[in-house]
Amino acid sequence: MEFEVVAFDVFGTLVDWRSSVAAELSRVGTRAGLQADWPVVADAWRSRYQPTLERVLVGDQPFQSLDVLHAAMLEDVIAEHGLQSFGPEDRAELVLSWHRPRPWPDSVPGLSAMRPRYILTPLSNGGVGLLTRLAKSAGLPFDCILSAELAETYKPDPRVYHLVSGYFDLRPDQVLMVACHPGDLAGAKRAGLRTAYVPRPLEWGPADGPGASGWRHAGTALPPPPDVDFATDDLIRLAEMINQV
Amino acid sequence: MEFEVVAFDVFGTLVDWRSSVAAELSRVGTRAGLQADWPVVADAWRSRYQPTLERVLVGDQPFQSLDVLHAAMLEDVIAEHGLQSFGPEDRAELVLSWHRPRPWPDSVPGLSAMRPRYILTPLSNGGVGLLTRLAKSAGLPFDCILSAELAETYKPDPRVYHLVSGYFDLRPDQVLMVACHPGDLAGAKRAGLRTAYVPRPLEWGPADGPGASGWRHAGTALPPPPDVDFATDDLIRLAEMINQV
Repeated sequence: MEFEVVAFDVFGTLVDWRSSVAAELSRVGTRAGLQADWPVVADAWRSRYQPTLERVLVGDQPFQSLDVLHAAMLEDVIAEHGLQSFGPEDRAELVLSWHRPRPWPDSVPGLSAMRPRYILTPLSNGGVGLLTRLAKSAGLPFDCILSAELAETYKPDPRVYHLVSGYFDLRPDQVLMVACHPGDLAGAKRAGLRTAYVPRPLEWGPADGPGASGWRHAGTALPPPPDVDFATDDLIRLAEMINQV
Repeated sequence: MEFEVVAFDVFGTLVDWRSSVAAELSRVGTRAGLQADWPVVADAWRSRYQPTLERVLVGDQPFQSLDVLHAAMLEDVIAEHGLQSFGPEDRAELVLSWHRPRPWPDSVPGLSAMRPRYILTPLSNGGVGLLTRLAKSAGLPFDCILSAELAETYKPDPRVYHLVSGYFDLRPDQVLMVACHPGDLAGAKRAGLRTAYVPRPLEWGPADGPGASGWRHAGTALPPPPDVDFATDDLIRLAEMINQV
Protein backbone atom coordinates (compact mmCIF):
# COMPACT_ATOMS: atom_id res chain seq x y z
CA MET A 1 0.00 0.00 0.00
CA GLU A 2 1.53 3.25 -1.15
CA PHE A 3 -0.20 6.57 -1.43
CA GLU A 4 1.02 10.06 -2.20
CA VAL A 5 -1.96 12.28 -1.35
CA VAL A 6 -4.01 12.38 1.86
CA ALA A 7 -7.48 13.92 1.36
CA PHE A 8 -9.53 15.09 4.32
CA ASP A 9 -13.18 15.57 4.96
CA VAL A 10 -13.43 18.91 6.79
CA PHE A 11 -16.72 19.58 8.66
CA GLY A 12 -16.71 17.22 11.63
CA THR A 13 -13.43 15.53 10.72
CA LEU A 14 -11.05 18.50 11.02
CA VAL A 15 -13.20 21.25 12.52
CA ASP A 16 -15.76 21.56 15.29
CA TRP A 17 -18.47 23.29 13.25
CA ARG A 18 -21.08 22.94 16.03
CA SER A 19 -19.52 25.04 18.77
CA SER A 20 -18.14 27.55 16.25
CA VAL A 21 -21.45 28.11 14.44
CA ALA A 22 -23.35 28.18 17.77
CA ALA A 23 -20.97 30.87 19.06
CA GLU A 24 -21.57 32.99 15.95
CA LEU A 25 -25.34 32.48 16.19
CA SER A 26 -25.16 33.61 19.82
CA ARG A 27 -23.06 36.67 19.01
CA VAL A 28 -25.18 37.84 16.07
CA GLY A 29 -28.42 36.77 17.82
CA THR A 30 -27.65 38.80 20.95
CA ARG A 31 -26.93 41.81 18.72
CA ALA A 32 -30.34 41.28 17.05
CA GLY A 33 -32.10 41.01 20.45
CA LEU A 34 -32.79 37.27 20.11
CA GLN A 35 -32.57 34.48 22.66
CA ALA A 36 -32.41 30.79 21.77
CA ASP A 37 -30.63 27.54 22.59
CA TRP A 38 -27.97 28.30 19.99
CA PRO A 39 -26.29 24.87 19.82
CA VAL A 40 -29.72 23.42 19.06
CA VAL A 41 -30.18 26.00 16.29
CA ALA A 42 -26.74 25.05 14.92
CA ASP A 43 -27.80 21.38 14.96
CA ALA A 44 -31.05 22.24 13.15
CA TRP A 45 -29.06 24.11 10.48
CA ARG A 46 -26.58 21.27 9.96
CA SER A 47 -29.29 18.60 9.99
CA ARG A 48 -30.70 20.11 6.78
CA TYR A 49 -27.37 19.59 5.05
CA GLN A 50 -27.63 15.94 4.04
CA PRO A 51 -31.24 16.10 2.72
CA THR A 52 -30.39 19.27 0.76
CA LEU A 53 -27.36 17.68 -0.88
CA GLU A 54 -29.35 14.59 -1.70
CA ARG A 55 -31.83 16.67 -3.70
CA VAL A 56 -28.91 17.86 -5.82
CA LEU A 57 -27.44 14.36 -6.12
CA VAL A 58 -30.71 12.87 -7.41
CA GLY A 59 -31.15 15.76 -9.85
CA ASP A 60 -34.10 17.57 -8.19
CA GLN A 61 -32.00 20.72 -7.75
CA PRO A 62 -29.08 22.10 -9.77
CA PHE A 63 -25.57 22.19 -8.28
CA GLN A 64 -25.00 25.30 -6.17
CA SER A 65 -22.14 26.28 -3.90
CA LEU A 66 -22.42 25.30 -0.26
CA ASP A 67 -22.63 29.02 0.64
CA VAL A 68 -25.83 29.32 -1.39
CA LEU A 69 -27.26 26.14 0.13
CA HIS A 70 -26.30 27.28 3.66
CA ALA A 71 -28.17 30.54 3.08
CA ALA A 72 -31.31 28.70 1.90
CA MET A 73 -31.17 26.23 4.82
CA LEU A 74 -30.81 29.14 7.24
CA GLU A 75 -34.09 30.63 5.98
CA ASP A 76 -35.87 27.39 6.92
CA VAL A 77 -34.24 27.30 10.35
CA ILE A 78 -35.20 30.94 10.97
CA ALA A 79 -38.83 30.18 10.13
CA GLU A 80 -38.85 27.03 12.23
CA HIS A 81 -37.26 28.62 15.31
CA GLY A 82 -38.98 32.02 15.18
CA LEU A 83 -35.75 33.93 14.50
CA GLN A 84 -37.18 36.44 12.00
CA SER A 85 -35.41 39.31 13.79
CA PHE A 86 -32.23 38.29 12.00
CA GLY A 87 -31.91 40.96 9.30
CA PRO A 88 -30.43 40.41 5.81
CA GLU A 89 -26.94 41.47 6.93
CA ASP A 90 -27.11 39.22 9.99
CA ARG A 91 -28.04 36.29 7.75
CA ALA A 92 -25.18 36.96 5.33
CA GLU A 93 -22.79 37.19 8.28
CA LEU A 94 -24.06 33.91 9.73
CA VAL A 95 -23.47 32.07 6.43
CA LEU A 96 -19.82 33.10 6.76
CA SER A 97 -19.60 31.39 10.17
CA TRP A 98 -19.04 28.18 8.16
CA HIS A 99 -15.82 29.78 6.81
CA ARG A 100 -14.23 30.14 10.26
CA PRO A 101 -14.86 27.05 12.42
CA ARG A 102 -12.26 26.04 15.00
CA PRO A 103 -10.10 22.99 14.33
CA TRP A 104 -10.16 20.04 16.75
CA PRO A 105 -7.06 20.13 18.99
CA ASP A 106 -5.30 17.31 17.10
CA SER A 107 -6.02 18.62 13.57
CA VAL A 108 -3.17 21.11 13.10
CA PRO A 109 -0.48 18.97 14.80
CA GLY A 110 -1.72 15.84 13.02
CA LEU A 111 -1.60 17.42 9.56
CA SER A 112 1.74 19.06 10.31
CA ALA A 113 3.21 15.65 11.15
CA MET A 114 1.99 14.16 7.84
CA ARG A 115 2.96 17.02 5.60
CA PRO A 116 6.69 16.31 5.19
CA ARG A 117 5.84 12.98 3.59
CA TYR A 118 2.44 13.44 1.92
CA ILE A 119 0.56 15.97 -0.18
CA LEU A 120 -2.40 17.13 1.94
CA THR A 121 -5.69 18.42 0.56
CA PRO A 122 -9.21 18.90 1.82
CA LEU A 123 -11.89 17.03 -0.13
CA SER A 124 -15.10 18.57 1.10
CA ASN A 125 -18.48 19.62 -0.17
CA GLY A 126 -17.51 23.18 0.83
CA GLY A 127 -16.43 25.39 -2.07
CA VAL A 128 -12.85 26.33 -3.02
CA GLY A 129 -13.20 29.83 -1.55
CA LEU A 130 -14.85 28.61 1.66
CA LEU A 131 -12.20 25.91 2.19
CA THR A 132 -9.30 28.27 1.49
CA ARG A 133 -10.60 30.84 3.96
CA LEU A 134 -11.35 28.09 6.52
CA ALA A 135 -7.87 26.56 6.19
CA LYS A 136 -6.22 29.96 6.53
CA SER A 137 -8.31 30.91 9.56
CA ALA A 138 -7.82 27.54 11.27
CA GLY A 139 -4.12 27.23 10.35
CA LEU A 140 -4.63 23.88 8.58
CA PRO A 141 -1.45 23.26 6.54
CA PHE A 142 -2.81 21.98 3.22
CA ASP A 143 -0.76 21.82 0.01
CA CYS A 144 -3.72 22.58 -2.22
CA ILE A 145 -7.49 23.00 -1.97
CA LEU A 146 -9.71 20.48 -3.73
CA SER A 147 -13.47 20.69 -3.41
CA ALA A 148 -16.56 18.94 -4.70
CA GLU A 149 -17.24 22.29 -6.42
CA LEU A 150 -14.57 21.37 -8.99
CA ALA A 151 -16.71 18.39 -10.07
CA GLU A 152 -19.97 20.38 -9.72
CA THR A 153 -21.49 17.63 -7.59
CA TYR A 154 -21.11 16.42 -3.99
CA LYS A 155 -19.69 13.47 -2.12
CA PRO A 156 -20.34 10.55 -2.29
CA ASP A 157 -20.49 10.97 -6.09
CA PRO A 158 -17.36 9.11 -7.31
CA ARG A 159 -16.46 12.05 -9.55
CA VAL A 160 -15.55 14.00 -6.41
CA TYR A 161 -13.15 11.32 -5.12
CA HIS A 162 -11.62 10.94 -8.58
CA LEU A 163 -10.70 14.64 -8.69
CA VAL A 164 -7.65 13.85 -6.58
CA SER A 165 -6.24 11.01 -8.67
CA GLY A 166 -7.12 12.96 -11.83
CA TYR A 167 -5.28 16.17 -10.96
CA PHE A 168 -2.27 14.29 -9.58
CA ASP A 169 -2.08 11.68 -12.35
CA LEU A 170 -2.36 8.81 -9.83
CA ARG A 171 -4.42 5.68 -9.46
CA PRO A 172 -7.34 6.07 -7.00
CA ASP A 173 -5.64 3.67 -4.56
CA GLN A 174 -2.70 6.09 -4.30
CA VAL A 175 -5.01 8.48 -2.43
CA LEU A 176 -6.00 8.09 1.25
CA MET A 177 -9.37 9.58 2.28
CA VAL A 178 -9.69 10.55 5.96
CA ALA A 179 -13.16 11.13 7.43
CA CYS A 180 -15.29 10.70 10.55
CA HIS A 181 -18.42 9.84 8.53
CA PRO A 182 -18.84 6.18 7.51
CA GLY A 183 -20.86 7.17 4.43
CA ASP A 184 -18.04 9.35 3.12
CA LEU A 185 -15.54 6.53 3.57
CA ALA A 186 -17.90 4.02 1.92
CA GLY A 187 -18.11 6.38 -1.09
CA ALA A 188 -14.32 6.75 -1.19
CA LYS A 189 -13.89 2.98 -0.98
CA ARG A 190 -16.34 2.43 -3.87
CA ALA A 191 -14.31 4.94 -5.89
CA GLY A 192 -11.14 2.92 -5.24
CA LEU A 193 -9.43 5.12 -2.62
CA ARG A 194 -7.70 3.98 0.57
CA THR A 195 -9.63 5.00 3.69
CA ALA A 196 -8.92 6.10 7.26
CA TYR A 197 -11.65 6.42 9.90
CA VAL A 198 -11.22 8.99 12.67
CA PRO A 199 -14.40 9.10 14.80
CA ARG A 200 -15.46 12.43 16.26
CA PRO A 201 -17.98 11.59 18.99
CA LEU A 202 -18.37 15.26 19.92
CA GLU A 203 -19.27 16.45 16.41
CA TRP A 204 -22.90 16.83 17.54
CA GLY A 205 -21.98 17.78 21.11
CA PRO A 206 -22.14 15.62 24.23
CA ALA A 207 -24.92 13.04 24.76
CA ASP A 208 -26.05 14.70 28.00
CA GLY A 209 -25.11 17.54 30.35
CA PRO A 210 -24.59 21.18 29.28
CA GLY A 211 -24.82 21.70 25.53
CA ALA A 212 -26.34 18.28 24.89
CA SER A 213 -28.31 18.27 21.67
CA GLY A 214 -30.37 15.11 21.91
CA TRP A 215 -29.19 14.50 18.36
CA ARG A 216 -29.01 10.78 17.72
CA HIS A 217 -25.25 10.80 17.08
CA ALA A 218 -24.40 13.15 19.98
CA GLY A 219 -21.58 11.84 22.16
CA THR A 220 -21.33 8.65 20.12
CA ALA A 221 -18.43 7.17 18.20
CA LEU A 222 -20.06 5.32 15.34
CA PRO A 223 -18.54 1.91 14.64
CA PRO A 224 -16.00 2.02 11.83
CA PRO A 225 -17.29 1.08 8.39
CA PRO A 226 -16.04 -2.31 7.16
CA ASP A 227 -12.74 -2.61 5.33
CA VAL A 228 -11.13 0.69 6.30
CA ASP A 229 -7.35 0.68 5.95
CA PHE A 230 -6.79 2.69 9.15
CA ALA A 231 -8.92 3.48 12.20
CA THR A 232 -7.77 5.63 15.10
CA ASP A 233 -9.32 8.30 17.24
CA ASP A 234 -6.86 11.08 16.59
CA LEU A 235 -4.91 12.55 13.71
CA ILE A 236 -1.57 12.64 15.51
CA ARG A 237 -1.78 8.87 15.88
CA LEU A 238 -2.89 8.55 12.25
CA ALA A 239 0.21 10.51 11.21
CA GLU A 240 2.39 8.00 13.11
CA MET A 241 0.59 5.13 11.42
CA ILE A 242 0.85 6.40 7.85
CA ASN A 243 4.39 7.71 8.23
CA GLN A 244 5.43 4.08 8.89
CA VAL A 245 3.74 2.65 5.76
CA MET B 1 -7.96 50.01 -4.14
CA GLU B 2 -8.66 46.97 -2.00
CA PHE B 3 -7.93 43.39 -2.89
CA GLU B 4 -8.12 40.17 -0.95
CA VAL B 5 -6.34 37.65 -3.18
CA VAL B 6 -2.90 37.90 -4.77
CA ALA B 7 -2.46 35.59 -7.78
CA PHE B 8 0.99 34.78 -9.13
CA ASP B 9 2.32 33.71 -12.44
CA VAL B 10 4.82 30.93 -11.65
CA PHE B 11 7.31 30.06 -14.43
CA GLY B 12 9.67 33.02 -14.67
CA THR B 13 7.89 35.10 -12.04
CA LEU B 14 8.42 32.87 -8.97
CA VAL B 15 10.79 30.18 -10.20
CA ASP B 16 13.95 30.02 -12.27
CA TRP B 17 12.82 27.32 -14.69
CA ARG B 18 15.86 27.74 -16.98
CA SER B 19 18.68 26.76 -14.64
CA SER B 20 16.55 24.07 -12.98
CA VAL B 21 15.48 22.40 -16.23
CA ALA B 22 19.01 22.73 -17.66
CA ALA B 23 20.42 21.01 -14.55
CA GLU B 24 17.96 18.12 -14.96
CA LEU B 25 18.73 17.85 -18.69
CA SER B 26 22.43 17.71 -17.83
CA ARG B 27 21.94 15.05 -15.14
CA VAL B 28 19.70 12.79 -17.22
CA GLY B 29 21.69 13.52 -20.39
CA THR B 30 25.00 12.52 -18.80
CA ARG B 31 23.36 9.30 -17.62
CA ALA B 32 22.24 8.67 -21.22
CA GLY B 33 25.74 9.37 -22.57
CA LEU B 34 24.76 12.67 -24.20
CA GLN B 35 26.57 15.98 -24.39
CA ALA B 36 24.95 19.30 -25.27
CA ASP B 37 24.76 22.95 -24.29
CA TRP B 38 21.94 22.17 -21.82
CA PRO B 39 20.80 25.74 -21.08
CA VAL B 40 20.34 26.20 -24.83
CA VAL B 41 18.28 22.99 -24.94
CA ALA B 42 16.18 24.27 -22.02
CA ASP B 43 15.64 27.53 -23.95
CA ALA B 44 14.62 25.58 -27.06
CA TRP B 45 12.10 23.60 -25.00
CA ARG B 46 10.60 26.68 -23.37
CA SER B 47 10.53 28.64 -26.64
CA ARG B 48 7.98 26.13 -27.97
CA TYR B 49 5.65 26.91 -25.10
CA GLN B 50 3.96 30.06 -26.38
CA PRO B 51 3.31 28.83 -29.95
CA THR B 52 1.93 25.53 -28.59
CA LEU B 53 -0.47 27.27 -26.24
CA GLU B 54 -1.57 29.58 -29.01
CA ARG B 55 -2.64 26.60 -31.13
CA VAL B 56 -4.92 25.57 -28.26
CA LEU B 57 -6.19 29.12 -27.75
CA VAL B 58 -7.20 29.52 -31.41
CA GLY B 59 -8.87 26.10 -31.38
CA ASP B 60 -6.41 24.17 -33.61
CA GLN B 61 -5.68 21.74 -30.75
CA PRO B 62 -7.83 20.57 -27.83
CA PHE B 63 -6.96 21.58 -24.27
CA GLN B 64 -4.37 19.27 -22.70
CA SER B 65 -2.47 19.51 -19.46
CA LEU B 66 0.89 21.26 -19.55
CA ASP B 67 2.58 17.93 -18.73
CA VAL B 68 1.21 16.46 -21.96
CA LEU B 69 2.27 19.54 -23.93
CA HIS B 70 5.74 19.54 -22.34
CA ALA B 71 6.17 15.90 -23.41
CA ALA B 72 5.18 16.69 -27.00
CA MET B 73 7.45 19.77 -27.15
CA LEU B 74 10.34 17.68 -25.82
CA GLU B 75 9.99 15.27 -28.75
CA ASP B 76 10.51 18.16 -31.15
CA VAL B 77 13.53 19.43 -29.20
CA ILE B 78 15.04 15.93 -29.16
CA ALA B 79 14.69 15.67 -32.94
CA GLU B 80 16.06 19.16 -33.52
CA HIS B 81 19.10 18.74 -31.24
CA GLY B 82 19.94 15.09 -32.04
CA LEU B 83 19.16 13.83 -28.53
CA GLN B 84 17.52 10.56 -29.57
CA SER B 85 19.55 8.65 -26.97
CA PHE B 86 17.07 9.87 -24.35
CA GLY B 87 14.97 6.75 -23.67
CA PRO B 88 11.24 6.75 -22.81
CA GLU B 89 11.94 6.78 -19.06
CA ASP B 90 14.45 9.61 -19.43
CA ARG B 91 11.84 11.62 -21.32
CA ALA B 92 9.17 11.01 -18.66
CA GLU B 93 11.66 12.04 -15.97
CA LEU B 94 12.57 15.21 -17.84
CA VAL B 95 8.93 16.27 -18.11
CA LEU B 96 8.84 16.17 -14.31
CA SER B 97 11.73 18.65 -14.12
CA TRP B 98 9.06 21.33 -14.61
CA HIS B 99 7.55 20.18 -11.26
CA ARG B 100 10.67 21.00 -9.24
CA PRO B 101 12.20 24.31 -10.38
CA ARG B 102 14.03 26.44 -7.83
CA PRO B 103 12.38 29.64 -6.59
CA TRP B 104 14.10 32.99 -7.10
CA PRO B 105 15.75 34.12 -3.84
CA ASP B 106 13.04 36.71 -3.04
CA SER B 107 10.04 34.45 -3.81
CA VAL B 108 9.64 32.58 -0.51
CA PRO B 109 10.36 35.59 1.75
CA GLY B 110 8.19 37.85 -0.42
CA LEU B 111 5.17 35.54 -0.32
CA SER B 112 5.69 34.88 3.40
CA ALA B 113 5.53 38.62 4.06
CA MET B 114 2.24 38.97 2.14
CA ARG B 115 0.52 35.90 3.54
CA PRO B 116 -0.64 37.27 6.90
CA ARG B 117 -2.74 39.84 5.07
CA TYR B 118 -3.68 38.28 1.72
CA ILE B 119 -4.85 34.98 0.29
CA LEU B 120 -2.08 33.78 -2.04
CA THR B 121 -2.57 31.52 -5.05
CA PRO B 122 -0.65 30.63 -8.17
CA LEU B 123 -2.48 31.35 -11.43
CA SER B 124 -0.43 29.52 -13.99
CA ASN B 125 -0.86 27.49 -17.15
CA GLY B 126 0.68 24.57 -15.22
CA GLY B 127 -1.84 22.02 -13.94
CA VAL B 128 -3.15 21.65 -10.38
CA GLY B 129 -0.93 18.62 -9.68
CA LEU B 130 2.17 20.20 -11.21
CA LEU B 131 1.67 23.46 -9.27
CA THR B 132 1.01 21.67 -5.97
CA ARG B 133 4.15 19.56 -6.31
CA LEU B 134 6.15 22.63 -7.41
CA ALA B 135 4.92 24.73 -4.47
CA LYS B 136 5.72 21.96 -2.01
CA SER B 137 9.16 21.35 -3.46
CA ALA B 138 10.03 25.07 -3.62
CA GLY B 139 8.45 25.93 -0.24
CA LEU B 140 6.13 28.54 -1.76
CA PRO B 141 3.50 29.31 0.92
CA PHE B 142 0.27 29.43 -1.09
CA ASP B 143 -3.19 29.23 0.49
CA CYS B 144 -4.69 27.31 -2.43
CA ILE B 145 -3.72 26.18 -5.93
CA LEU B 146 -5.58 27.68 -8.89
CA SER B 147 -4.60 26.75 -12.42
CA ALA B 148 -5.70 27.43 -15.97
CA GLU B 149 -6.52 23.69 -16.00
CA LEU B 150 -9.64 24.51 -13.94
CA ALA B 151 -10.95 26.61 -16.86
CA GLU B 152 -9.64 24.13 -19.47
CA THR B 153 -7.92 26.92 -21.36
CA TYR B 154 -4.78 29.03 -20.91
CA LYS B 155 -3.86 32.58 -20.05
CA PRO B 156 -4.50 35.16 -21.43
CA ASP B 157 -8.07 33.79 -21.87
CA PRO B 158 -10.14 35.92 -19.46
CA ARG B 159 -11.82 32.78 -18.11
CA VAL B 160 -8.55 31.89 -16.41
CA TYR B 161 -8.27 35.25 -14.62
CA HIS B 162 -11.94 35.09 -13.62
CA LEU B 163 -11.43 31.76 -11.84
CA VAL B 164 -10.07 33.67 -8.86
CA SER B 165 -12.92 36.14 -8.42
CA GLY B 166 -15.41 33.34 -9.16
CA TYR B 167 -14.20 30.91 -6.50
CA PHE B 168 -13.77 33.67 -3.91
CA ASP B 169 -17.01 35.50 -4.67
CA LEU B 170 -15.15 38.75 -5.36
CA ARG B 171 -15.12 41.38 -8.08
CA PRO B 172 -12.18 40.99 -10.52
CA ASP B 173 -10.64 44.22 -9.20
CA GLN B 174 -10.35 42.62 -5.74
CA VAL B 175 -7.66 40.34 -7.17
CA LEU B 176 -4.05 41.40 -7.82
CA MET B 177 -2.17 39.52 -10.57
CA VAL B 178 1.63 39.44 -10.22
CA ALA B 179 3.75 38.52 -13.24
CA CYS B 180 7.01 39.21 -15.04
CA HIS B 181 5.42 38.89 -18.51
CA PRO B 182 3.75 42.00 -19.91
CA GLY B 183 1.31 39.88 -21.97
CA ASP B 184 0.05 38.10 -18.86
CA LEU B 185 -0.54 41.43 -17.11
CA ALA B 186 -2.27 42.87 -20.17
CA GLY B 187 -4.63 39.87 -20.12
CA ALA B 188 -5.28 40.29 -16.41
CA LYS B 189 -5.95 44.00 -16.91
CA ARG B 190 -8.44 43.31 -19.72
CA ALA B 191 -10.18 40.85 -17.37
CA GLY B 192 -10.51 43.60 -14.74
CA LEU B 193 -7.82 42.52 -12.27
CA ARG B 194 -5.27 44.75 -10.53
CA THR B 195 -1.73 44.16 -11.77
CA ALA B 196 1.82 44.12 -10.41
CA TYR B 197 4.87 43.91 -12.66
CA VAL B 198 8.02 42.24 -11.30
CA PRO B 199 10.61 41.99 -14.10
CA ARG B 200 12.91 38.95 -14.13
CA PRO B 201 15.78 39.89 -16.45
CA LEU B 202 17.53 36.55 -15.82
CA GLU B 203 14.55 34.37 -16.78
CA TRP B 204 16.32 33.50 -20.06
CA GLY B 205 19.80 33.68 -18.52
CA PRO B 206 22.39 36.45 -18.87
CA ALA B 207 22.82 38.43 -22.11
CA ASP B 208 26.48 37.41 -22.40
CA GLY B 209 29.19 35.50 -20.55
CA PRO B 210 28.85 31.91 -19.27
CA GLY B 211 25.37 30.44 -19.78
CA ALA B 212 24.30 33.21 -22.17
CA SER B 213 21.50 32.01 -24.42
CA GLY B 214 21.43 34.61 -27.13
CA TRP B 215 17.67 34.60 -26.57
CA ARG B 216 16.24 38.00 -27.37
CA HIS B 217 15.01 38.59 -23.81
CA ALA B 218 18.14 37.25 -22.10
CA GLY B 219 19.47 39.62 -19.45
CA THR B 220 16.80 42.20 -20.23
CA ALA B 221 14.17 43.76 -18.04
CA LEU B 222 11.30 44.49 -20.39
CA PRO B 223 9.64 47.86 -19.86
CA PRO B 224 6.54 47.59 -17.69
CA PRO B 225 3.26 47.40 -19.57
CA PRO B 226 1.14 50.55 -19.37
CA ASP B 227 -1.24 51.08 -16.46
CA VAL B 228 0.12 48.55 -13.98
CA ASP B 229 -0.86 49.28 -10.38
CA PHE B 230 2.55 48.28 -8.99
CA ALA B 231 6.00 47.82 -10.50
CA THR B 232 9.06 46.75 -8.54
CA ASP B 233 11.96 44.41 -9.11
CA ASP B 234 11.49 42.15 -6.13
CA LEU B 235 8.70 40.46 -4.23
CA ILE B 236 9.88 41.52 -0.78
CA ARG B 237 9.49 45.14 -1.87
CA LEU B 238 6.11 44.32 -3.44
CA ALA B 239 5.01 42.87 -0.08
CA GLU B 240 5.93 46.15 1.62
CA MET B 241 3.99 48.08 -1.01
CA ILE B 242 0.79 46.07 -0.86
CA ASN B 243 0.84 45.67 2.91
CA GLN B 244 0.53 49.47 3.07
CA VAL B 245 -2.50 49.70 0.77
